[in-house]
This record gives sequence, C-alpha cells and structure tokens, in this order.
Amino acid sequence: MPRIFNKIKLGLLLTGTEVMTGDILDSNSSFIAKEFLGVGLRIQVKVAVPDEKGQISQEIINLTQSLDLLIVNGGLGATLDDVTAAAAADACGVELAAHPIAVAHIEQRTGIKKEVAQSLQFKQALMPVGAEPIDNPVGTALGFYLLLHGCHCYFTPGVPLEMKAMVTGPIMRQVMEDFALKKPVEILRFFVLGLGESRIQQIIQGQVPAETLERIFLGFRVEAPMVEAKLTCFEQEDLSLLHETAAVVQSLLSDYIVSKADPLPARVNQLLRAQGQSLALAESCTGGLIGSYITSVAGASDVLEAGFVTYSYQSKTKLLGVPADLLADSGAVCKEVVLAMAQGALTQSSAHWALAVSGIAGPGGGTPEKPIGTVFIAWGNKEKIITRKLWIRRERTQFQHYTAMAALDLLRRQLQGLPTDKPYYFDSLTNHLLSMG
Amino acid sequence: MPRIFNKIKLGLLLTGTEVMTGDILDSNSSFIAKEFLGVGLRIQVKVAVPDEKGQISQEIINLTQSLDLLIVNGGLGATLDDVTAAAAADACGVELAAHPIAVAHIEQRTGIKKEVAQSLQFKQALMPVGAEPIDNPVGTALGFYLLLHGCHCYFTPGVPLEMKAMVTGPIMRQVMEDFALKKPVEILRFFVLGLGESRIQQIIQGQVPAETLERIFLGFRVEAPMVEAKLTCFEQEDLSLLHETAAVVQSLLSDYIVSKADPLPARVNQLLRAQGQSLALAESCTGGLIGSYITSVAGASDVLEAGFVTYSYQSKTKLLGVPADLLADSGAVCKEVVLAMAQGALTQSSAHWALAVSGIAGPGGGTPEKPIGTVFIAWGNKEKIITRKLWIRRERTQFQHYTAMAALDLLRRQLQGLPTDKPYYFDSLTNHLLSMG
Repeated sequence: MPRIFNKIKLGLLLTGTEVMTGDILDSNSSFIAKEFLGVGLRIQVKVAVPDEKGQISQEIINLTQSLDLLIVNGGLGATLDDVTAAAAADACGVELAAHPIAVAHIEQRTGIKKEVAQSLQFKQALMPVGAEPIDNPVGTALGFYLLLHGCHCYFTPGVPLEMKAMVTGPIMRQVMEDFALKKPVEILRFFVLGLGESRIQQIIQGQVPAETLERIFLGFRVEAPMVEAKLTCFEQEDLSLLHETAAVVQSLLSDYIVSKADPLPARVNQLLRAQGQSLALAESCTGGLIGSYITSVAGASDVLEAGFVTYSYQSKTKLLGVPADLLADSGAVCKEVVLAMAQGALTQSSAHWALAVSGIAGPGGGTPEKPIGTVFIAWGNKEKIITRKLWIRRERTQFQHYTAMAALDLLRRQLQGLPTDKPYYFDSLTNHLLSMG
Repeated sequence: MPRIFNKIKLGLLLTGTEVMTGDILDSNSSFIAKEFLGVGLRIQVKVAVPDEKGQISQEIINLTQSLDLLIVNGGLGATLDDVTAAAAADACGVELAAHPIAVAHIEQRTGIKKEVAQSLQFKQALMPVGAEPIDNPVGTALGFYLLLHGCHCYFTPGVPLEMKAMVTGPIMRQVMEDFALKKPVEILRFFVLGLGESRIQQIIQGQVPAETLERIFLGFRVEAPMVEAKLTCFEQEDLSLLHETAAVVQSLLSDYIVSKADPLPARVNQLLRAQGQSLALAESCTGGLIGSYITSVAGASDVLEAGFVTYSYQSKTKLLGVPADLLADSGAVCKEVVLAMAQGALTQSSAHWALAVSGIAGPGGGTPEKPIGTVFIAWGNKEKIITRKLWIRRERTQFQHYTAMAALDLLRRQLQGLPTDKPYYFDSLTNHLLSMG
C-alpha cells in the first residue's frame, strides 16, 4: 500500500431504506470511494442504516469518534422520511434552523418565496445550527459541513447527480485544503482484455519491486471481462519512476492491452476510423449486442456500415446467403457457418471488414461435442477471413457479453496486426482459464 | 411497514478491500437484503470494512452486541488477505482449527489430500473452535455458524455464486428454524413500464387503505425503466385480502402492467410465440440493443426472424430500401424514415411484425426542432404501420436502453390490443415527465 494511504481515517455513512432493502445497488458509495482514492484516501469503514433519526444520529456519534473525515450520503430531501439533517443536529446537540443561504438557494431555484411556500418545500433549508452550507449547482438540496469530535463531516444528498456535483466540486476542494492533500501528479491507465485483475496483479508484482509499488500506486477498476489497471503517482519526484514502471507494465501485459485511454468498443471504433475503414456485423447468439456496443460510442456511424442479426436459420440464408444445406447438415454453430456469415456480411454491405459470431448461449442446445458456451467467431476482409473457436462458460447474458467483447477484441488484434490466437483468461475469483482458442 | 418486520434485528458485515475501493458494486449485499426481505426481515445496519483482522474482529464484537442475526460476507478465501475466520476466532476469544468436515470437503472437491497439500490450500478448512460448518455445494470454502453475545452469526464467502447457494439454501433454512419465521404465503408481482416507483407507490397508497398495507407488504425492485411491484402476504388469513388488493392494483396500474411474471423482453417473446408470429427489427440509434434484449431470453429463435442494424444512411437504403433522397432531405430521424425502415424490414424478411427505431442519442446531432433524445419508433405488420415520437432525455447509453424498452413496450401494447399513445413517465427521483408521444 503506498505511503500516501491510511494517514487520514475516512468513513462513509449511507442512509436510506432503499439501500437496506437491496432495491438499488449502492453505486453512490462506489463513486465516492473512487473519487477519494484518486487523492490517496481509502475508505476505512462504510455503514448503511435506514432513514431512522435515532439510528443515524447514533452512527454519526460513533463514527466521528474514530474518524478524521466522514461523508454522509442521503436523507437530505424534502419528504418526511428524510431525517439526516435532524439526526446530525441531535448528534451535535444543537437545534435545526433554516440557513439563510439555503433559503435563498431554494427561492432562486424554485422561484417560490419562503413566505408563501407550502410546509415541506423549505424543509431542505434546515441545517444544524453552526453547519456550513455546501453549494449544490444541480438541485435544491444544499449539503452541509460540520466538525464533530474533531471529525470533518460532509452531508450530501442521495440523488446521484447532486451528490456527484458536490463531491467532485466543493467537497473535494475543501477536503484537499483541510488535509493538505496532494493531487495525483499523473495517472497512467491500461485497459486490458483477457487477463483478470488478480492475474494482472500477480504478473506486475512478480516483476515490479515492492518498493516501487509503495510509491506508484497500482489500482484496478473491473467491468468484467475488461480490467482497467491504473498507475498513480502522487509526487513530482516519482514521475520518472511512474514512466519506467508503465514501460515495464506495458511489456508485461503486451498485446492484452486494448488501449491506454479507451474501453474496447471505443478502441475498435478508433482503429477503424484511423484506417478509414468500415465494419459489417453478422450476429447470431449475441443478437445485436456487438452492434449496440459499437454504437454506444458517439460517432459510430463513421465506422459501422451495417449489422445483420440472423438468429434464425432462415435469416442466415436469406440475409447472408449461408447455404441452407450447410445449416441442415452441421447446425448453426460451426466454423463453416460463421465463415459464410462473415462472407455474407461483406457481400451484402460495402464494408471493408466483417465480424460474425455464432454460438450456444444456453440454457438449452448443448451437446457433448459442442457444450453450452461454445462459440465460433469469424473476422476478415475480402482477402482473408479467419475463424476461432472459444468456450465461454458463463450464464446466458454473461456469455453474450463475453462473446461480444471477445469478438471485438479479435477484430482489434487483427486491426493492430497482433496475434489473434493468444488464450483469453477471463478472470473469476479463482482465476480459472475459461476459454482457449 | 407490515407487522412482521423489525422483530428480529438483522445486520450485514461485508469485508474486503475491493468493497471499500469502489472497484465493484456491492451486489452481494443487495442480494442478501432481498432474500431476507422475502421472509420479512429487514437489514437494520450494514457495515463494510477492509480485510483487516483487528477491524473485522471489532465490528463483529460491536454488531453482535446489538443484533439478533448477523450475516458476514467475504474473506473466507484461500489467500493471505482473507482473514475473516481469524477475526471471528479473535472476536470469540477462541483458536482457529481445521474442521474435519471442511478438510473432507476440500479433499473431495480438489482431489488433494491434506497431508500432501501446499500450505495455503487447506487454509479454508480453518474455523473458530466451536463453529459449525455450512455446506458450500459450489465451491471449496465452507461457511460457518457461531453464536456470539446471543447473536446468530453466519459467515459466507464473497464469491457471489457460493454466497448465493449458501444463503438461499442451508442458511435460510436454519434462520427460518432458529427464529420460527413464516415464509410468505404468496407473492404477487407486477412488472410495470412507464410509471416510476414513487409514482406507483403514490397511486397505490392513494387507493389502498394503510391498514391493508400493514398486512400486505408492498415492495419494489427497480431496473429502470422497468419497475417490479410486489405484494407479499405472510399470513394464511390474509390471502383473500392479498387477492383483493392485487385486483385493485391491477386496475390502478392497468395497461402499464407488462406482465405478472416476466420482464418486458420475455413478455414480448411470449406474446409473439402465443400468436405464432415472428418479428423483424430495424435499428438505427439502438445499434442492435433491441435484438440483444430479445435474444437475452432463451428460445428467441422462435420469434426473432431477423434484425437489421442500419446505422448509416447507406445501409438504410441498401438493406431496407429507405429512399436516399428522403434521407438527404429530412435526415434519418423523422417519421417517414422510421416508417420506411419498418416497411423495409417486413419486405426483406418473412416476419409478421416489424419494429424500427431512429433517434438522436447524442452527445452531438441535436437541433432546436429535434433535440438530443428525440426518437421515432415504428411498428406494425403488412396491413398497418404506426409511428410514435418520444423524447427520452437520458445520456447516450441510457437513451439507447430506454428507447429499446419503449419500442418493445409499444409492440407489447400492440400485440395485446392496448392503447399505444399513453404517456410514459420514466421515473427519476423527482418524477419528471420524461417523454410524451
């Protein structure tokens, strides 16, 4: 763990019944954790409680006794079940009062004067006496700051957009100042496909000295199967070490690195655009998912010529010219069919490149020779089409996602002139080898 | 809140550095919360701490002093940073020892005998002395149970698949027995599109007496824009009240109810299958996403005839016969183009129904007349094609998701003979009206 960490004890208190019922995934705390990690602060404890005043108040008292910095998220809304401000007042042993800055903020945003407002509209102006308002550029609920038991406490609204604006703006500025924090001097990123987080960590820790990783922080962000590995440098004097380390990481991860700035779909778009070339898709088991990934990136119309979703035998023949007797004899999941699909996509469009997939998503349709998870991928141009077989042992929708990502990655490797026969290690916690061409 | 709740104090302790760094969304706790909510137990406090033995041990001591039931998740793996078992032993003031049942389980799953194993392989057999193993049908790490300060503690592995098997199986059985819990007698579900959670709650609470909602529990599960509203009955004597309430809810939510059992894509598949009809897609701004949703459901080959991803002008003309001069004059986002796309999809396939979308996903491409988020949807058969314009103010990928769902819902309404011009209220926390045809 780099020396920057653990000097400051940071905690997170989440309020809200919906967080407790599991009705929403708690993405706010993930966002807050990442933001503070970016300035070298790791969350040491995270507590979630329902919207109950007594319980929130007690947790504020407990947590402030052991922490230096506490972010409270949720319960600042205008409805009756939003009780965080009242709980904070109780924890501090003070009254709630309408703060003039908050009143002015609400009047300005709603166009309603407090004198004529209905009872609940100005509830959001109530803060513990002595608290300092935190600006909310995108909503009516201001946050507030207070110091309790020597712990700096920031209260933020649960609405993600408002919380994010507050945390990334005024709160981060004040925290950096209060604790004299350093911003990262530089962050270098590697988007990796085909090696899991723990495998990457092993590879890097096996070659990069532990003392280096005390100064250059190695972090991960995983959206399986993509892994974003980040090297962060907090000191000007470590900059050359950062770049040396990055060079080592680059040579270690080699062609598994998709890019240094973009997730896979954006990288494929970029490679096609740079070469002035276009793509046609022929999707069976993924049902259009590859197309949706490519078009999730703005500007996809420059590179995606067309997509054929040919889920049925009939459409494979009609739209792509896959011979009906081939389908009847061999089924849709074989090398010959996926090759014919790619050829058909080239013929039926004016695209330079074609990418085709056909596989068994399950839960039905597996055989001993072709178990569920078997997928054939073909890619190429008018000169040459290459195929590869993978075995992706994931449940149906994950299979579709991994297949789409593997197909895009094979095209990425082709466009970069890299080997397309390297194994993909799709990480699980046990680091199984999930597919091999 | 129904009377069943809050008799038993349930808490959750999550361990693991990755939970703290925000690298993963904490979906385990959402799963655990939902499972226990299903038997009437609401989580009262949720704490997350890093893999640090002292901190975990202290939290176990703190939480068991106030709770009746504690689920601990994470840190039971075979690597050195998994320290939960040791922390539990410290909390109880006992030693760690290899449990013979756990040793046998690991030997059986790995085929390696303990005598010849490497040092870490049998680390997972170590449990606090006196703890009872909990079976893990899908992995090597057994869980364990112990009683501390009168609190029933269940320790589970962080791997989601293993945790889920353990929680839904042996743990739930033992908890139901320990606390003499009642299972829900019956749960009735409504999958709703076009009304947000808070709007649905308002509508229902406006018509169903509060006393009824003390006995029939109204719960929600949101995967925006879909909302699953659940009515749960815990007492045999309340069964007729459940069905009366469900009838009221059904009439209140009316045609916004997609189904009582299935999310939207499965419902559309089912309606098409029941009518023996097939579908062709013509997707522009969604890039294949509608197809991927339809094929996320097993058996989609019976209903999805073909999909055309026509992102470029050229492909709209070449694949679907959209007149090039229409595109040149009016652009791709207009009623006439989406109509021609649907017609082309019918002509170019043998499907009974076509569904077509064309819109402006952003971030570029908006105009004052057609702002970002504008989308035209067309659906119909050879007899009649209908179009509708929506304005879906969401960032690019959310726009694509909402558009795909709205398109599927309009087809669902058509197939059910329901009105296709009702407003969609896509809920945000402030319940804005996001789109109107």
